[in-house]
This record gives sequence, structure tokens and C-alpha cells, in this order.
Amino acid sequence: MARSRGSRPVEKWGVFELALKGPARGNPFVDVRFGASFTFKHRTVQVGGFYDDGGVYRVRFMPDALGRWTYVTRSNRRELDGVTGEFACTKPRPGNHGPVGVYRYFHFAYADGTRHYSFGTTCYAWVHQPAALQEQTLRTLARSPFNKLRMCVFPKHYLYNANEPTLFAFPRKGSRRKGKYAWDLARFDVRFWRLLETRVGQMRDLGIEADLILFHSYDRWGFAHLDRVTERRYLKYLIARLAAFRNVWWSMANEWDFMKAKTVKDFDRYFRIVQENDPYDHPRSVHNGRVFYDHRKPPVTHCSVQHSDLTKVTEWRQQYAKPVVVDECCYEGNIQRRWGNIPGWELANRFWTGVVLGGYVGHGETFVHPKDILWWSKGGRLYGQSPRRIAFLRRILEQAPKTALEPISMGRGNEALAKPGEYYLFYYGLKQPALMPMDLPGGARFKVEIIDTWKMTITPRPGTVGGEFVLKLPGKSFVAVRMTKVR
Amino acid sequence: MARSRGSRPVEKWGVFELALKGPARGNPFVDVRFGASFTFKHRTVQVGGFYDDGGVYRVRFMPDALGRWTYVTRSNRRELDGVTGEFACTKPRPGNHGPVGVYRYFHFAYADGTRHYSFGTTCYAWVHQPAALQEQTLRTLARSPFNKLRMCVFPKHYLYNANEPTLFAFPRKGSRRKGKYAWDLARFDVRFWRLLETRVGQMRDLGIEADLILFHSYDRWGFAHLDRVTERRYLKYLIARLAAFRNVWWSMANEWDFMKAKTVKDFDRYFRIVQENDPYDHPRSVHNGRVFYDHRKPPVTHCSVQHSDLTKVTEWRQQYAKPVVVDECCYEGNIQRRWGNIPGWELANRFWTGVVLGGYVGHGETFVHPKDILWWSKGGRLYGQSPRRIAFLRRILEQAPKTALEPISMGRGNEALAKPGEYYLFYYGLKQPALMPMDLPGGARFKVEIIDTWKMTITPRPGTVGGEFVLKLPGKSFVAVRMTKVR
Repeated sequence: MARSRGSRPVEKWGVFELALKGPARGNPFVDVRFGASFTFKHRTVQVGGFYDDGGVYRVRFMPDALGRWTYVTRSNRRELDGVTGEFACTKPRPGNHGPVGVYRYFHFAYADGTRHYSFGTTCYAWVHQPAALQEQTLRTLARSPFNKLRMCVFPKHYLYNANEPTLFAFPRKGSRRKGKYAWDLARFDVRFWRLLETRVGQMRDLGIEADLILFHSYDRWGFAHLDRVTERRYLKYLIARLAAFRNVWWSMANEWDFMKAKTVKDFDRYFRIVQENDPYDHPRSVHNGRVFYDHRKPPVTHCSVQHSDLTKVTEWRQQYAKPVVVDECCYEGNIQRRWGNIPGWELANRFWTGVVLGGYVGHGETFVHPKDILWWSKGGRLYGQSPRRIAFLRRILEQAPKTALEPISMGRGNEALAKPGEYYLFYYGLKQPALMPMDLPGGARFKVEIIDTWKMTITPRPGTVGGEFVLKLPGKSFVAVRMTKVR
Repeated sequence: MARSRGSRPVEKWGVFELALKGPARGNPFVDVRFGASFTFKHRTVQVGGFYDDGGVYRVRFMPDALGRWTYVTRSNRRELDGVTGEFACTKPRPGNHGPVGVYRYFHFAYADGTRHYSFGTTCYAWVHQPAALQEQTLRTLARSPFNKLRMCVFPKHYLYNANEPTLFAFPRKGSRRKGKYAWDLARFDVRFWRLLETRVGQMRDLGIEADLILFHSYDRWGFAHLDRVTERRYLKYLIARLAAFRNVWWSMANEWDFMKAKTVKDFDRYFRIVQENDPYDHPRSVHNGRVFYDHRKPPVTHCSVQHSDLTKVTEWRQQYAKPVVVDECCYEGNIQRRWGNIPGWELANRFWTGVVLGGYVGHGETFVHPKDILWWSKGGRLYGQSPRRIAFLRRILEQAPKTALEPISMGRGNEALAKPGEYYLFYYGLKQPALMPMDLPGGARFKVEIIDTWKMTITPRPGTVGGEFVLKLPGKSFVAVRMTKVR
């Protein structure tokens, strides 16, 4: 029995969703297989569906081409199998640039070609906090320069993270016994997943990529020790619910090497499951504690790095030939842990250093708080001095030529992000040269602007420069120089 | 024919000098061998003498024991051979602590047991500058916190170092030909050597160790390409003239690996010649460009390091088990070279970092100057902000318990120079923790002082601490904490 349905149009890179009634008895999460094939002209995409509660099954799909799409469901249950339908994919609304992917080896761009300059921040456990705090986090994000957020699916047990969440990925089974939690790992708590996808959707509407951390070791609930069957089911459920959101990224783990129960082979497996089940090839990475995963492996789309020395971006670009995102290079703050107490000027300096060397850098904030609400984990408010400077840097990058700017070293500490012959963005870090001999190749003339990255001023120099010349600099730390070809 | 002479008393670690008339014809520098044996009770020390000009031969000796010393000369010329005499060695005058040597593996002390906290600076070519500038350098040094100076015997050809010296170690032979200088390498220009020893003596009187750099590559005169016979003669002459100065140190080279005409074996040979001919075992080292010499070799008394990352002091102490002197970690200044344009706050930070990790750190200054008078090479005046902070650190060290303070790591970035249970000097660098959980072993109570290393303030905290407690800190960069046991 073929049943065909028409639907409302869906914007390109928006979410099409089909909901069907099906069996509610037994364990629909395990007993029922459900999915759909979406077809555009000669191209068909297989998409997994999911059980959502109350006998409702859903399949979500993100169309990437304008025009008529058709679909047909598949299931091991007759009432969910062979349902067909169609919908029109319409032009994306303003602000919808599609999902982010790798652009020219070392960079990112949205599907519509717009460059994505990744300026991420970190609120690991924000969806596990009280609702009012989550709302405050969204308001803060809306005013922030950040366009990516690292966040965990599982809750966090760690310093400053003692409070128990209300909702979890899995439902509880019975009561807590001997201090241990018992979970029904064969089911999902759809209340949690609805919350998660609501938050991911709100982030999408703010233009923020959700860098979802799939596993981590900061755990008192057992989620760092799941069995393989549960892990696979969890990953497929996550992908079925969330992959259709264009702003999703997959981070296999935070500090993968700190998950003592898991090995490299486990992470290889996570990458494989995610890659096989995500029809959209969202960015995939894994973040290190002390030891890097081998980012050269094909399923890894970009390097997600924890390291304090941003000058190593050069080495990592050479080694991995992929975008380098230093997601964690210590956080602005004043807590006792060494990764959480650098001053704002140093975090801003690390951003500039990493960016001018052709990398992307992530933010985090850890100021002591009377109620343990630290941005890095719980969200809330930002107190630091670096976000404004990061916003300033982001604006400068967005004003740059719309191409893949690459780092060039012009000797004597002259490191620039450049489109050679057209545009150079030099940064000197804490170095305070007063005079800098330079040699810009080609006959072009350049306008010079001196940038105080801390005071956030851009001061044009009169006249133009070109060829060999000596550049006068302010002789203080944290200065950048922008040179733009005169047309 | 025995001729015996009486002499005036010489203070302990002062210079005894015997001058004898001898042959002036031929080439006395090569033809005449001359030296003396100095005897104190059962102990005899062999010392090389030198020809000084006008038929006068000298031998210098630094006595290290109070009482009667006798000597007898030796020579291949009868008039210089077998001359005997004696002198009394008297108590050292105030301020004369004797020569510096290694103390408890990682440290330095004067021969009288006084700790030597090495706070060096660098004026490579100061003795090759006009006299008035040399005098100004001495006046600056007298007011500075520095107790060691790195300086070259040979002049320097390098950026900002174009001026021709008046005097050289060797006399000129004929005139300059084809842009090349010709030298009489079989003789020495005693005018230069008198100047050099005058300056070393003035430094001694200021309490400043002369870290003499014996070879280097910054050369247009040929001194980086001497033959082996000349090198040996030069080193023996240098030692004969200067070893009796208690404040002399021997640095085989600056950036030894940049001397492309010389190999590791050549430097092994320099060390051997110096060790064999210096009766006093003055400190011996060799400073690196990119590649470290193997500081584990026995003739090397301490590590002389060029490196920007002071946190590696820990590693070098473990690797070499000798004092670590980071003689060059970039200079305060504003020139275009990357080693010469760090701000004063960063150089002060590097001093504190290296010192708290159990190393010693050296200063240098390179500000653009209208007449190319940069302290790092020519001396003159100091313009920077770091010397006052270095003086402040030196005073703090000198107030510490008179023992070999060693670094201890108490976790969470709590690095201290300590006499455990008695004294701790913590330093947090750019980290800005506001609260620091601590656990001081033993039942002792400690007075706490918060040190602002930049503003140079020491603020006592009321009360005492001990055992487990949480230390409140100012939550800003460049803070140190001193904890002293309450008696």
C-alpha cells in the first residue's frame, strides 16, 4: 500500500521532517528499524530515522539543492515502510549559508561559498544546567564574537561541575543503588534529546556551529564506559536526530586520550560510524589531552588541538594538511588550574598568533564564581577582556580579501596572513620592534595601517609603501600591521 | 745563580706579580718560555708567565691560602730561570670573596663560601669601543644589578657593529691588502692586553665576573679562522695574563656552532687547553647558537645556554646536572631581529621563571640608537625597564636562606624555589590565579608575602599559614609569593 504525501516547502539547508505513527509497544528504539531515501533527480540519499515517543517516528533531512525532492520510507514494520512523498526545496533565507566544510585544505567555508572564520568558544555542559542559565548563555552568545561552541552531549563531572542534571541521554532504570546510577541503555530519554535539538536549533539561528562532543572522561554516570552496542545505537540516534541541522559538527571526544577505557581502535570506530551514518559529511574531529590522535586519518576533517604554543600551528599544518583549530590553548580566568588562569591579553595574543600562522583558535573563560558558574562549562555570562579583542580580530578577517589567506614568513619575525601581492596582515606578538626592514615583492604600492590589537585601534599611515623600505612601528607589544594594495 | 726576592704582601685571591728583565730581541713571545712554581707548605702550583714588552717578563699568581708562599721561576733563558722569592698572603679585604666556583651541583659560590647568584649582562664588544664609552659602561655597570658580564676578546663584526677598533689582540703586519687585514699572529699587541686586563680589574673592583668569550664567528679580521698553533698560543697568553684575576670566567665561544670553520673537536681542544693551563679552575662554558655543545663533558663546569623558553631549565638541570645559566633568552629592546625586541616585562618574567626553576638568567639590551650604541654589544647606557626588576629579584634572592635553594613543583603550576619546610618563593608568571589550594608539608607556620614583580612591591599578609589552606592571590600576572617559616 503506497501512501504519498505532500509537504510544505523547505528552504535549502533547512530541516525537512516527516512524522509517522507506528508501534509504541515493546522497545521501539531497538525493535523498529526506520529510515528514508530522499531523491533529487538522479541522486538518492539514505537517511536514518528515529523513534521519538508516543508512537511517533521521525525522519529528518537537510536538502542541499533547489527544486523537487521525493522520498520513500523503509522499515521492518509495515506501517512505516514504503511511505512516499515530496517537497519543494526553496532558496535559503538570508543568513542561511549552509553547513560548514573544509575549504582549500586549511580553511572552512559554508556550502554557499561564504568563508567561515572559525572563532569558537566552549561551554561544555551548558545544556545540563537549569533552564534560566541556558537562556542566559544564549543571550550572551548572541552578543559574542563566537561562531562555534564546543558542548558535550553527556553531562560533566569535574571541578566546579558537581550539580546533577535534570535530563540525560538515557532514561534512569530504578533508583540509585550503592552510589551507582542504573540506566536503561536500550532506550533514549526523548526529553533530553528535544532539549538538545532545541538548543542546537537556537544556535543555528544565531549563526553558531554546534561542535558536539560525543564522548568524554569527566563522568560519574558510566557514560565513559558504554558497551559497543550502546555506543553504536547512541551515535546513530544522535545522527538521526541532529545531522539535519546544518550547524552541527562532530567531535568524537574531548581529551580522547584521557578516556582510559577506550583505545585508538574505539575512536577509529566512532569516526567510522559517524562518517557512515551522517549523509552530510559534517566536520569530524577529535580533541586531545596530552596525545594527539593521528589527524591524518581520512575520516578526520580537521585538527582539533589542545596546546598552549600557537607557534606550532605551522608544524601541524605541514604535518596534517588539514585545517588546524586550536580549540583549547588555556582559558582566560583566575582558577587554580594552569589551563584556566591566563590573562585576557595573553588569550588575545594567542588568537592573533594562531590566526596569522594560518590556524583557528578557540576561546574559553574560567573566572572563580561564587556559585561555580564558569563560562567554560556552564555558560552564563562572560567577564573577561578577550572576547572584545577576538571580535575585533574577527572583523579584521572578515574585511580581508575573500580568498584563502595563507601564512607567509618574510623573515626577522615578520609573519603575515596574506594574499601575496594584495594583502598582508602582520602580527608581532609581544615583540616590540621599532623599525622593520621589509621587502614586498612585485611593483605594487600598499596602504599601511597600524593595529593596536589590545586597544583595538586601526591607525592609517599617510602615503604608501612598496618594494624595499623600513617600516616604523610603535615599539610596543601586541601590534599588528595591515597592508592593502592600492588599486 | 739563585736570586731571591722579597715582595710586598698580597691579599688572598689578589694578584701577585713578578716582573723580570729578559731578552727583547727576536720574538720573545715565541722564543722564550717562562713560568714559575708557587709553593705553599707541601703544595706547589705551576703558573705560566708572559712577555709584556720592552724586555719585561711577568708571571702572575693568585694565592688562595694565608701565610708564606715561595716561588721559583723556570725558563729556557738563563736570566729568567731559577729566580726565587717569597711573599706573604694576607687576609682578603672586604668585598673580596675569591673566585666563583660551582656549589652543590646546580649553583655558584665564591671561594669564601658566599653564594654567588649569577645575574649577568652582555656587552660583547665594549672593550673595542672608544675610551669615553668604555668609561660610561663602567659607570653604568656600577649602578646596575649585574654581577657578570659577557664580553669578547676579539672584536665584533655584525649588525650595528661596523666601527673599527683601535687595538687588537695581535699587531698588524703591513697595511690592509685587497680588503684583507694582515696580522702578525706570532706576536701580541700588549697595548690591547693591558687595556683588557685594566677593564677586567675594574670589573673585579665592582664585583663583576668577566665572562670572557674566547672565540666567536662575528668576524671580518680572520680571528674566527686562526690556525691551531696560533689558537694555542693565544689561549696560553690569555690565561697567563688574566687567570690570576679572581673574577675571570672562560666562555669558549659565543654561538659556537655558528663558527663554521671549527668542529666539536676544536672546542674539545679549547676546553682542554684552558683546563690544563688555568691553575685556578675558573668556570668554563660554551654558549650555543642553535645546537648545544654536550655540557656533560667533564671540562664544562656549567651550561651556558641561548634559549627563549625558560621552562626548559628543569630539563637541562636533569640532563646535565650542572648549573644552568641561560645567558641569552632574547634581549629587551626594539630592533628588528627577533632575539632583540622583547619588552622589559617579558625579560623580567623570563628572569623570574628561570630563577624559580633553579637556573640563572642573563640580561641584554638592544634599543635602536642614533649612533648604533646598543648596550648588548657596545655598552654605554641602559634604557630598559628590566634592570630595576632584576635588581629587585637579586635582592630577594640575597635575603633568602644561605643554602642551595632548589626548585620544587607542588602541582597546579605552583613552582617554587625552596628550602622545603623553611622557605618558598613561588612565581606564577603570566598566570593569574585568584585562589590556590596549597599543602605545605610539616607542622610549621609560615609568614606570607605577596610580591608584585613588576611594581616591585612586597606586601605582607596578616597572620600565618601552614598545612592545607587556600591562598588568596591578586588574580593578575607577574605575581610571586614568599613564604618564610615563623620561628
